[in-house]
Amino acid sequence: MKKLVLLSLLALGMTAHADKPYRSVAQILSEAPKDAWYRLDQQHLLYLTLAGNKKVVIELAPRFAPAHAKQIKTLADSGYWDGLTVSRVQDNFVAQFGAFDMTSKKDIKDLPATASTKLPAEFTVPARDLPLTALPDKDPYANKVGFVDGFAVGVHQKEAFLVQCYGMVGAGRQNEPDSSHGGNLYVVIGQPARSLDRQITVVGRVVHGIEHLSSLPRGTGELGFYQGDEKPTAIISARMGDKLPADEQLQFEALDTRSRAFKDSIEARRYLQSPWHVAKPSGGMGICDVRQTVRLVK
Amino acid sequence: MKKLVLLSLLALGMTAHADKPYRSVAQILSEAPKDAWYRLDQQHLLYLTLAGNKKVVIELAPRFAPAHAKQIKTLADSGYWDGLTVSRVQDNFVAQFGAFDMTSKKDIKDLPATASTKLPAEFTVPARDLPLTALPDKDPYANKVGFVDGFAVGVHQKEAFLVQCYGMVGAGRQNEPDSSHGGNLYVVIGQPARSLDRQITVVGRVVHGIEHLSSLPRGTGELGFYQGDEKPTAIISARMGDKLPADEQLQFEALDTRSRAFKDSIEARRYLQSPWHVAKPSGGMGICDVRQTVRLVK
Repeated sequence: MKKLVLLSLLALGMTAHADKPYRSVAQILSEAPKDAWYRLDQQHLLYLTLAGNKKVVIELAPRFAPAHAKQIKTLADSGYWDGLTVSRVQDNFVAQFGAFDMTSKKDIKDLPATASTKLPAEFTVPARDLPLTALPDKDPYANKVGFVDGFAVGVHQKEAFLVQCYGMVGAGRQNEPDSSHGGNLYVVIGQPARSLDRQITVVGRVVHGIEHLSSLPRGTGELGFYQGDEKPTAIISARMGDKLPADEQLQFEALDTRSRAFKDSIEARRYLQSPWHVAKPSGGMGICDVRQTVRLVK
Repeated sequence: MKKLVLLSLLALGMTAHADKPYRSVAQILSEAPKDAWYRLDQQHLLYLTLAGNKKVVIELAPRFAPAHAKQIKTLADSGYWDGLTVSRVQDNFVAQFGAFDMTSKKDIKDLPATASTKLPAEFTVPARDLPLTALPDKDPYANKVGFVDGFAVGVHQKEAFLVQCYGMVGAGRQNEPDSSHGGNLYVVIGQPARSLDRQITVVGRVVHGIEHLSSLPRGTGELGFYQGDEKPTAIISARMGDKLPADEQLQFEALDTRSRAFKDSIEARRYLQSPWHVAKPSGGMGICDVRQTVRLVK
């Protein structure tokens, strides 16, 4: 049994934590080699500027939702979201922005002529051949969990999907699976929204400024939509990073989820040691408790 | 195998969902018999009134943290929190209130003479003899999960503990396990804070008004403490329900977690059906995704 455990740790590229002095996550990150980090690609970063000049940056996940990623870029380029609002904030669930109007149940703004009129449902991708850095942890919703391109991923039967952890971004839809148009996007601002797994297209994740969404007043209407005198938060602009002047771009470094440093950092969290921690950890972790480190470098 | 599954469903008092027409959670709740509901005891309800007359109600869990529950009642009776603040709001983690001052690392208000000067660490209770309504789901942090008195509970080896789901309330402490005095309380306002499981005393849960804490501006200081010009939210008063005039009490009904209706409602969530849902559910659920229904009746 001991041998099996050791083998599975080695298979994950980890060393048994008892063999070495404990290194904290901060220490592991500071000692990680330069090539364990990569720069997030401005082509995939959607910059939202909210009222009060608050910046939220979303990284798209083209591997999982290529048609939606392309559409979102088209919408940002056309200025689609400029002047629209964050019109729904439901406690412990999502903040949603776009043109959807709860009263009429319709969008109050047409998509630009450059946009696709129909997008496919991109709920899952084939799990086969996906470069998954698997974790050994149990998950109630998936046979297997791990990381791809920095994103938390679950595998259910033969399909892989982005797990709806805190900060994940998805495309609102009507009842038809292929009814999302990419203009209504929601951000998970509470506990992982796992009941949405495989039910909707997940397009990316917030890498910066999620607190500007999670701390918004909750809407008191149905599903957290604002109603009556409640003021939805205005979106000043939404643009892709590669279309911004260099001095308006933010530069982010992310820890490669295939790197040794990432694996070590997971183990450091799994067997957390500090003067404060007294109980021996269970050795298990939830997929949403494992976060890729993304840091602002400029 | 089929027989085993059926048996375990029967053991939980559930019926195999395929046998009957699907009933939604709303339908199950509306059809639940009167005796499936119980009134929350005003003796265990802590009413916080925040600036702007915003009400937050916390239900204490004396079965799990009897000394802390007693202390909190003493503190509320003495008016301890009146005039103090919510001084820490850390995104995707906790909102904390009390007298703790981050600059001095000390409390800025002494406990009343009526309070205990020393409380025990109440991190876990013996799992044996606990009336646990167990769930069949896998959990990375516990051997078993389920419900006791409406609270989500995990069992690790021989110890049971309150799971730190959204809305759970715990007692801040220093490095020593028995250093909490019950005056600094935190509320989980993000993903389940499972790394705190068995590391700290959990005293209860928010049953009303958590949005008044979760939507507060995040503090930009260390650990989300407010700093500089940032304004902590004032606590106007904090009182136990049984000490309030009847017309200031709120009456809550909770669905008994031992009842058939509760078990049915879990299954309805587990195998969610609606015109919107297209993918077949995995059949698994996270312990924090199962919430006891608590409703305001007055």
